[in-house]
Amino acid sequence: MKKVTVGIIGAGRIGQLHADNILGSQLYNLKALSDIQVEHLKGTHYENLVPVITTNPQDIFTDPEIDAVFICSSTDTHAEYIKAAARAGKHIFCEKPISFNIEETRKALEVVKEAGVKFQVGFNRRYDKHFRKVRETVQAGVIGTPHVIKVCSRDPEAPPEAYVQRSGGMFIDMTIHDFDMVRYLSGSNVTEVSVAAANLVDPMFGVNGDIDTAIITLKFENGALAVIDNSRQAVYGYDQRIEVFGDKGVVSAENETQTNIRISTKESIASDHPKYFFLDRYKDAYVEEINDFAKAILEDGPLVCTGEDGYQAELLAVAARVSWKEARTVSLAELSSVPV
Amino acid sequence: MKKVTVGIIGAGRIGQLHADNILGSQLYNLKALSDIQVEHLKGTHYENLVPVITTNPQDIFTDPEIDAVFICSSTDTHAEYIKAAARAGKHIFCEKPISFNIEETRKALEVVKEAGVKFQVGFNRRYDKHFRKVRETVQAGVIGTPHVIKVCSRDPEAPPEAYVQRSGGMFIDMTIHDFDMVRYLSGSNVTEVSVAAANLVDPMFGVNGDIDTAIITLKFENGALAVIDNSRQAVYGYDQRIEVFGDKGVVSAENETQTNIRISTKESIASDHPKYFFLDRYKDAYVEEINDFAKAILEDGPLVCTGEDGYQAELLAVAARVSWKEARTVSLAELSSVPV
Amino acid sequence: MKKVTVGIIGAGRIGQLHADNILGSQLYNLKALSDIQVEHLKGTHYENLVPVITTNPQDIFTDPEIDAVFICSSTDTHAEYIKAAARAGKHIFCEKPISFNIEETRKALEVVKEAGVKFQVGFNRRYDKHFRKVRETVQAGVIGTPHVIKVCSRDPEAPPEAYVQRSGGMFIDMTIHDFDMVRYLSGSNVTEVSVAAANLVDPMFGVNGDIDTAIITLKFENGALAVIDNSRQAVYGYDQRIEVFGDKGVVSAENETQTNIRISTKESIASDHPKYFFLDRYKDAYVEEINDFAKAILEDGPLVCTGEDGYQAELLAVAARVSWKEARTVSLAELSSVPV
Amino acid sequence: MKKVTVGIIGAGRIGQLHADNILGSQLYNLKALSDIQVEHLKGTHYENLVPVITTNPQDIFTDPEIDAVFICSSTDTHAEYIKAAARAGKHIFCEKPISFNIEETRKALEVVKEAGVKFQVGFNRRYDKHFRKVRETVQAGVIGTPHVIKVCSRDPEAPPEAYVQRSGGMFIDMTIHDFDMVRYLSGSNVTEVSVAAANLVDPMFGVNGDIDTAIITLKFENGALAVIDNSRQAVYGYDQRIEVFGDKGVVSAENETQTNIRISTKESIASDHPKYFFLDRYKDAYVEEINDFAKAILEDGPLVCTGEDGYQAELLAVAARVSWKEARTVSLAELSSVPV
Repeated sequence: MKKVTVGIIGAGRIGQLHADNILGSQLYNLKALSDIQVEHLKGTHYENLVPVITTNPQDIFTDPEIDAVFICSSTDTHAEYIKAAARAGKHIFCEKPISFNIEETRKALEVVKEAGVKFQVGFNRRYDKHFRKVRETVQAGVIGTPHVIKVCSRDPEAPPEAYVQRSGGMFIDMTIHDFDMVRYLSGSNVTEVSVAAANLVDPMFGVNGDIDTAIITLKFENGALAVIDNSRQAVYGYDQRIEVFGDKGVVSAENETQTNIRISTKESIASDHPKYFFLDRYKDAYVEEINDFAKAILEDGPLVCTGEDGYQAELLAVAARVSWKEARTVSLAELSSVPV
Repeated sequence: MKKVTVGIIGAGRIGQLHADNILGSQLYNLKALSDIQVEHLKGTHYENLVPVITTNPQDIFTDPEIDAVFICSSTDTHAEYIKAAARAGKHIFCEKPISFNIEETRKALEVVKEAGVKFQVGFNRRYDKHFRKVRETVQAGVIGTPHVIKVCSRDPEAPPEAYVQRSGGMFIDMTIHDFDMVRYLSGSNVTEVSVAAANLVDPMFGVNGDIDTAIITLKFENGALAVIDNSRQAVYGYDQRIEVFGDKGVVSAENETQTNIRISTKESIASDHPKYFFLDRYKDAYVEEINDFAKAILEDGPLVCTGEDGYQAELLAVAARVSWKEARTVSLAELSSVPV
Repeated sequence: MKKVTVGIIGAGRIGQLHADNILGSQLYNLKALSDIQVEHLKGTHYENLVPVITTNPQDIFTDPEIDAVFICSSTDTHAEYIKAAARAGKHIFCEKPISFNIEETRKALEVVKEAGVKFQVGFNRRYDKHFRKVRETVQAGVIGTPHVIKVCSRDPEAPPEAYVQRSGGMFIDMTIHDFDMVRYLSGSNVTEVSVAAANLVDPMFGVNGDIDTAIITLKFENGALAVIDNSRQAVYGYDQRIEVFGDKGVVSAENETQTNIRISTKESIASDHPKYFFLDRYKDAYVEEINDFAKAILEDGPLVCTGEDGYQAELLAVAARVSWKEARTVSLAELSSVPV
Repeated sequence: MKKVTVGIIGAGRIGQLHADNILGSQLYNLKALSDIQVEHLKGTHYENLVPVITTNPQDIFTDPEIDAVFICSSTDTHAEYIKAAARAGKHIFCEKPISFNIEETRKALEVVKEAGVKFQVGFNRRYDKHFRKVRETVQAGVIGTPHVIKVCSRDPEAPPEAYVQRSGGMFIDMTIHDFDMVRYLSGSNVTEVSVAAANLVDPMFGVNGDIDTAIITLKFENGALAVIDNSRQAVYGYDQRIEVFGDKGVVSAENETQTNIRISTKESIASDHPKYFFLDRYKDAYVEEINDFAKAILEDGPLVCTGEDGYQAELLAVAARVSWKEARTVSLAELSSVPV
């Protein structure tokens, strides 16, 4: 069977996650790994298993054996690498968000389009088996026409301040997954965004011009409404629930728990905690998304998660930021003129 | 044991519900029942069990044996009857909403205050055992400081058009319970209301200038946020869920189901439906609320659900209406000058 | 509407429970209450509400106004009162077990048959809405032919020693409800009983020749199997679950909890405890069973829970006792010759 | 890191399952695969990845590079291969049951003991994360002293007749996992076994001298009781639940479902089915068990699942068979003299 030969740019947490999944997949060869520094890879299994380890991403772009590039570096470098990879004729898997600047994202995607390469953005939750089945249920018409979509998305603990400072803000860093999820579930585009946000978890967020708690209401072209509620800290574990309500019923997905055990004593009736964070909860989804990308390349098939999806989610993050800053409902129509 | 002797004004569905609960309670004597017409009571058990059945509510206000009046007539008559009852020195239990006009409500409550009588508004959900335990859990500090309160409130089926036309609109007719619930759960007052509303269930609502679907976001004085989502029609049954999320955890109440059975076959894994509507779901709460009212009278104790609570919930309904009509966030501070 | 006029024999816990339900029912008049001593009824609401309070049950048997007798006295007196009531032409509601002696039970039921009066035994769990719906599901063929019936039945705490000493043993005191439940669910008679029993909860049971923990396996005429597991002490609350498994699926009923709330914190994910004991869990079932008895009398209709049902459950308790004592499987066929 | 070099005997369904997990593990090299015929491996990935594919298991026993042998051939060959592997100084992982004959098993284990090699039997359910956490909870004393252990174990569909004919009967083929589970959970040995069994699913079982439905009651040395209920066919999916009840509480593990979604419509409230069968439900457990075996070899540590565990479970299967055939309770003490 033909395999996809891959180079990965960025060997941090998410880059290594993809590297390990690629190494474990029958659909891929992992040829190269690049990072701005590679000392932390010394003595790891990557030394044995990856032929090229480099600090120069050009080694990847110029390698004729490499079919596809995974861009897992810091967000501010994405646009540049996307354009370089596309011009080199490589298929591209890019982590979210595509960039911090909606114009930059648009330009990078134009280069991708011209090059005619495949481009997938890393909205891994589309590959979560629970969420996927919710979408399939909606698309099968089981709950009728969607009226209200609800996404509850809470991280188990706040990231460190250094992370917050270069995250681009909660909307583009964290909520972007939820923006994509409501689009994925609704099958419609958003027309309006309205935000109520607060700094309740840790003053550090406010000090850095960010918020940590939000309720985001959206309207869709097809008339449906959606609401996302976010918090940077759910002390009981990663809280990831969705619900689509329609004129024939409602479909929802509950949290995955660590085990299905229940302990009943005089003191309490206790079940197990949700899986603690995204590496645990979305472990299988990360595998699915890269295998799906490989199949799209090998069979020249369609992508589940396109550059357009990445762009639209970014637009929503921008709209949410404006809504929060200006304390008003923001129409997506006005965003073309907003400096981002 | 001393009992509270009662006259009920209004012998429709809710009036009869209270009448039956009063007849079944050891804390009450039901002395009189009045309605604008009383033919429908002919041949019922009320004829045997209620000494006075009348079309004239004055018969209740002037009866020296009667300690308390239950006002269960149509909303547009509430204010007048409240004032008459208060001036007659009767304690008052009034169904929600107090009136359709916030100024009228204020004036009626001023008369109540002058008269020094007890006044309870019929927010029966405060007596639901699940919701009450959620509140107790919050107040005990178990989930820490509340950050986000969520109320999902969906009726099983849309009311008839004639009802919609005199309902005052969804916010004051249906959402008013949810407005009270977020106040009950948060223990704080609202500062801002923002609404996304739609007419998705039945065009009839739109024809009558009303909506049937809404997401309502609220901010509280203490910094917390809340979101209510409403629909006039959940085909699977009455959907009544709440959640309070804080810095130490989250507490929620799920729907009550008709039974706890589960049927697993090749085709499906099925559990039972939620109880179908408020008469079923809140059956016990209706009993609790009148017994609590009687105890407050007999022991001269405090009320769980005051005129002020009724007034504040009405204010929120007004704010929601303005937010919807003017497509903007409404500050509660501005409402004193809003003609309602 | 015609009502059933009732006399109750025995004014202990269960007698008062029935008295209160009868007082609250539109289908009954409570005419008389008898007990071997009546001092404990002084100053209670019964003094006002029950015309005759007596230490002589003959006052009930001889009262021509009384239609039906509720026998709630100690088990050793049941047979005598059943016969007296039947001969006086009164319909009979008798608490479980009918007697401690299977021959005595048979003879009492013969007198009932001759007298042609209605006779209902107090297997209240047949009126639990969850269990009833399980039975209806089975009877509707939804799970096909039943193969295995499972009943888990555990009391929240052990009864006092004095109670144990006159209880007749766990099988006839406690398991008798479960014996009836498997018959109710299977719609078939038992052919064999096999018991594994132990004294694990409290040595007091063993000292009194009793056990507190058991697993009881049964075979039915229709080929199905059943298993009951009992404990006298489940510290987390009353544990009452059933399951019927067949060739097309399985139907089960879970415990009723005190509320539907869930509390998630760093330490635990906690839901609420089961309702604590039978007075709470089967509160509605006790009301249903007496109303059903009244209807059977007023409409001369069939009974859900007959003398035969009481007799068969007692037979199973006897068989279980023999199986335990003789450490062998007991065939129901051999029981006619067993001295009990 | 040092790895364990492995040869696998038997390349059927379970042999291939272990082969794939071994290939995916960092702890193993897969050197050889043997089967009585190897045509079915032509063109598979094993051709590329496994150096030796052979019809002669001696090639494995005599290969000095091979550290451990996985015995996945038909049960009637296990004892012979165990002895050969042990004498060759190979560590042994053997699928369940060790053999169909308890004496043969004992003799094979004696050879293992003399050889001083590691021996693990494939009771994969000990590695299921839910069941393991139940055991850990019991061992931590959370539910106090165990009184009653319950195992519900039902296959989703009956195996084909050819399988049944060489399965050794339900007790040694299927229930053996449950016998091990009750030992694993109780931490005590069984003293008595009593069986109620039936042929309800398909007459084919009866024709072949087997049963398809059973309730098995066990007594333990420490006084606890256990009950296993089995069926060869649960049409709603693989039903695998356990419960340990003690004097301080109860701990249970529910089924794993395919997804956590719930669909509520007018017709039904539906959740997802259990995972369909053991390859899906115990997928992770199969990985865990081989990694644990490798660690025990590499670190010369203790085994979770020993030859003794395999032997004891077989003894229980024999006792169950005798109990069923002779319709009586069987004491484990008498089994030494039973010809098996």
